[in-house]
Amino acid sequence: MSDRRTAILEAAATVIARRGVRGLRVEELAEEAGVSKALIYYHFEDRTGLLRRTLAFVNNRAERYTAEQAAAGQPAAETPAGPLRRLEQALLLELQDLPHVRENSTAWGELRASAVFDPELRGELALASVIWVREVADQLGEARPTAPESALTASAERLTALLEGLSARWLSGILPLTDARTRMREAIGVEVAHLAGLD
Amino acid sequence: MSDRRTAILEAAATVIARRGVRGLRVEELAEEAGVSKALIYYHFEDRTGLLRRTLAFVNNRAERYTAEQAAAGQPAAETPAGPLRRLEQALLLELQDLPHVRENSTAWGELRASAVFDPELRGELALASVIWVREVADQLGEARPTAPESALTASAERLTALLEGLSARWLSGILPLTDARTRMREAIGVEVAHLAGLD
Repeated sequence: MSDRRTAILEAAATVIARRGVRGLRVEELAEEAGVSKALIYYHFEDRTGLLRRTLAFVNNRAERYTAEQAAAGQPAAETPAGPLRRLEQALLLELQDLPHVRENSTAWGELRASAVFDPELRGELALASVIWVREVADQLGEARPTAPESALTASAERLTALLEGLSARWLSGILPLTDARTRMREAIGVEVAHLAGLD
Repeated sequence: MSDRRTAILEAAATVIARRGVRGLRVEELAEEAGVSKALIYYHFEDRTGLLRRTLAFVNNRAERYTAEQAAAGQPAAETPAGPLRRLEQALLLELQDLPHVRENSTAWGELRASAVFDPELRGELALASVIWVREVADQLGEARPTAPESALTASAERLTALLEGLSARWLSGILPLTDARTRMREAIGVEVAHLAGLD
């Protein structure tokens, strides 16, 4: 991906986290990215094209910082943590009071909410959700290898939807971050105990 | 509440569900409610006042249709359903493909998301959440009277946050309604089994 294109997507995430999808104006985006409006249209055709690519960008960036921080928290010399610890780590990385996590989660929440009004964003959003649910189901399957596939998927769907719900409450300032993290950690335990009971 | 005031709040919920909070224009609202712009400012002072009252209105309306439908589903002649059945009924009423449920849930999701950008909405939103969590915790307590209070609250926080997460996925068209309802029903079972294990 060209540097200019990346700069535009980064700026789009910033502006959306600041003003929401409906507050995204191409003038402000061009200024934030340090490019011309024409270049934005050259790279992304129209507003929908830009929003779809920003959704994919925000999603990939979340995966990247998740992977980086998971790696940073796990020195090679140490015994690798168990599958549940890795799952907990991956999910809780989305609930951190760091500027880039806040920005990314806010932009994601906005883009997701705007898909209610904009069917053209749904394909990108559905794909991201399916991949995420699959990953969490795989991690649950490492912890509970004998649980049925359908039960793993259902648990993963609940855990990821819960994370989005808790994240929205945290970002809108009505649930303290520590409570959101505690609820998420407990939920993983509750779901894993449920899967163990299905063996 | 005066009829005119109610008409404005109903229209505000409709317009927000149609265009989002940022798409709410006083001109369109006045037209939808069949009143003058001046009357809107007379009743609600400013945009923030209007949004705060709309949030409370949407929330009260959800409680009202929940109560009505729960009553309708439970003829007086029948034995009252157990506490779990009532809880399931109350939560699943938010996941129904009916125009008024869709409108109410979409408007609620929009108002909740806009609290990320508008701290003045947070008081109303936090109050509504606390009351809802309290109600669900009480219903869980009827089913599991010996579970500790803190565990009931934690379960209720998870179930209500999950419902918001599932509802957002359903409304944005990425999770079929039947799946959302199934996940919610399962989650109640999983949480109740968890509470039973704490006795």
